Amino acid sequence: MDVRAVAAAAQAAARELATLPGERKNAALRAMADGLVAAERAILEANARDLAAARAAAAPAAETAREEGYTAAFLDRLTLNPKRVAGMAAGLRQIADLPDPVGEVTGMWPRPNGLTVGRMRVPLGVIGIIYESRPGVTADTAGLCLKSGNAVILRGGREALGSNAAIARVLREAAAGAGIPGGWLGFVDDPDRARVKELLSLHDLIDLIIPRGGPDLVRTVRETSQIPVIAHDKGLCHTYVDASADPATAEAIAFNAKVERPGVCNAMETLLVHEAVAPRFLPEMAARLRAAGVEVRGCPATRRLVPEAAPVTEADWDTEYLDLVLSVRVVASFEEAVAHIARHGSGLAEAIVTRDHACAMRFLREVDAGAVFVNASTRFTDGGEFGMGAEMGISTQKLHARGPMGLPELTCQKFIVFGDGHVRASTS
Amino acid sequence: MDVRAVAAAAQAAARELATLPGERKNAALRAMADGLVAAERAILEANARDLAAARAAAAPAAETAREEGYTAAFLDRLTLNPKRVAGMAAGLRQIADLPDPVGEVTGMWPRPNGLTVGRMRVPLGVIGIIYESRPGVTADTAGLCLKSGNAVILRGGREALGSNAAIARVLREAAAGAGIPGGWLGFVDDPDRARVKELLSLHDLIDLIIPRGGPDLVRTVRETSQIPVIAHDKGLCHTYVDASADPATAEAIAFNAKVERPGVCNAMETLLVHEAVAPRFLPEMAARLRAAGVEVRGCPATRRLVPEAAPVTEADWDTEYLDLVLSVRVVASFEEAVAHIARHGSGLAEAIVTRDHACAMRFLREVDAGAVFVNASTRFTDGGEFGMGAEMGISTQKLHARGPMGLPELTCQKFIVFGDGHVRASTS
Repeated sequence: MDVRAVAAAAQAAARELATLPGERKNAALRAMADGLVAAERAILEANARDLAAARAAAAPAAETAREEGYTAAFLDRLTLNPKRVAGMAAGLRQIADLPDPVGEVTGMWPRPNGLTVGRMRVPLGVIGIIYESRPGVTADTAGLCLKSGNAVILRGGREALGSNAAIARVLREAAAGAGIPGGWLGFVDDPDRARVKELLSLHDLIDLIIPRGGPDLVRTVRETSQIPVIAHDKGLCHTYVDASADPATAEAIAFNAKVERPGVCNAMETLLVHEAVAPRFLPEMAARLRAAGVEVRGCPATRRLVPEAAPVTEADWDTEYLDLVLSVRVVASFEEAVAHIARHGSGLAEAIVTRDHACAMRFLREVDAGAVFVNASTRFTDGGEFGMGAEMGISTQKLHARGPMGLPELTCQKFIVFGDGHVRASTS
Repeated sequence: MDVRAVAAAAQAAARELATLPGERKNAALRAMADGLVAAERAILEANARDLAAARAAAAPAAETAREEGYTAAFLDRLTLNPKRVAGMAAGLRQIADLPDPVGEVTGMWPRPNGLTVGRMRVPLGVIGIIYESRPGVTADTAGLCLKSGNAVILRGGREALGSNAAIARVLREAAAGAGIPGGWLGFVDDPDRARVKELLSLHDLIDLIIPRGGPDLVRTVRETSQIPVIAHDKGLCHTYVDASADPATAEAIAFNAKVERPGVCNAMETLLVHEAVAPRFLPEMAARLRAAGVEVRGCPATRRLVPEAAPVTEADWDTEYLDLVLSVRVVASFEEAVAHIARHGSGLAEAIVTRDHACAMRFLREVDAGAVFVNASTRFTDGGEFGMGAEMGISTQKLHARGPMGLPELTCQKFIVFGDGHVRASTS
């Protein structure tokens, strides 16, 4: 397939999309939702074929290393069912209900010479999405791009190719029926990996690449792309229980951050505890974690209070477990906790539990992460929980977008200037 | 020299800089300004040595191709004098007077569950600046980085090495005297180009690279860097004179955009004229341009109205002259003008001259550029003119910063979240 032609069509469509009124885009999003519900059977059939192929490859007869990767979790992510299709449709309707970011004027100010200068949000242009096995990403990301006035090029995992193609077909047809210019949804239906490399080279046609998937995918995209990339690296989140923390509050927050959903990026991996509160806090905390099946690995001071904890190693401080494992360190001071986070944190989310106002404000200022929490669980790091309505992943970068990315993060701001025949005085 | 060690020291300093109170940074900036004035003689002596070396290399005896590049304009950019040193000092004092972008909370909103979510500006970390012959860039960029809480690594042109080193030394000493942590100003004093490549590989230590210089420098940096780059590509700016334009207003704006300072990126390179106004506008406009020494190259319709104009070629529409040359095209419609700009514009700045409100608003929305002007000269595309106080160049990219970059563009925003023991409800 000709990836450049797909991208060129997307760029042409992007020019038209950029100035479409919000109600046209919203009508298309609702038509896309209706289309998914109406096409449920075809989508599930395509998904069943993908699943059968993946299961066959995962069977004991399979011999290549790659095929060993088809774990139960992988197959679960690949699976669609009526509830998940309905969820995709609901997601598109939710995006339709959000305010249109395009055309928003974020500020306007007069200049002494009578010029008026402002900033207006406009789409980025063409966004490429490279993702793995979850077919739901197809609908989510296409919907977010359309709403923000961007054309999109989708490249999903080869195992989900049939499911993704079925979903993309439905979205395209429904959008066309609602008057969206053709070409806005490019779909790379060739599973050859060479197509990804081609896609990542088209810096004259594509404005942004967003990889959505595991660390291997992100690294490969970062290293290969000639287009700017916004990505999620990893989530190594800490909770720091300050000397002044209420032990019960700290226990509730830390337990939630570790146990509620340990396999996600905003779960806690390391618990830091001030030595002044450790004796009143750690033994009960550890017992509750143990009861929930969490393996605790502690520093020597932790193990004096929690003898059954395993010794923690230096490597543990840098490990994103994504599992029911927790590293625990007792620190002698606030500064030691902040220094530990600066050294080992991944910059996704960090939390302090404290009753001391000054410590709370210092933590907010001094900890460098996409989201910094006072007396709340890092698990809230999520576009929906932050009130952004929908999210295009979480950026662990600093440029352009940091933390959960909503619709405004899929736009840029141009300056707009109103004059009345203004000319610039000679400077030389 | 060990570039990695310089960058590591900058990263360590950046952590301290990030939380310095504004008054400490402002005191340092004023001390740096005083230092430059006090060291004027040493700086001018170093500059005189750089100039002598460059003039010797530019002498007829010089034989390498590189040395032919030392034009009069190059030598002028390299030259310092008491007025220019005073200008650097004044620039630093101006930066001190600007509001501190760090710690600004740009929004804060309540969530239904009682969480409060907000966004706070924080520094990017370490910014690398790669520039060419103008020693003034050393003081400007170091000042902007310090004010925005970022550490900086400077790599100037080899011809200005002595001047830049003298300036950097003064800035560092003055800042140290004002209590700024050492390492905040890294200076690459080895002229070997291999050091640039090393610098551009340090993605674990440097957060952003800003090249300031000509297209060759920008291209090399873009192609080599493993660190995100924000750059200025080129400026191919249009002025569109709409059917409803007042000819006298259009003439004033277009003349200013072309002639006032033709060698800069925000000068006009192409004039688009609606056919309805062309007969009343173009002959007088062309006569005034000719009188100012501008060579006019026109499309066939232009040449019917301005017979002495040279024929324009397809290549002209894509040429940034940076000189007293102008391409002129007569268009049959607003849409034709916008399409021409979409095809040939560089995305820096575009202007319309019109009395028609609907055309003005359509132009604002439909033209995709860093700055879009209604009834004003593109020459106003400048951080100072926009009221941003000081500027770190003009970005022609869309991500992170578009158009003139001020202090806020040298920061990112993190989320801050205040809870009261909040934990996230189970989702599964």
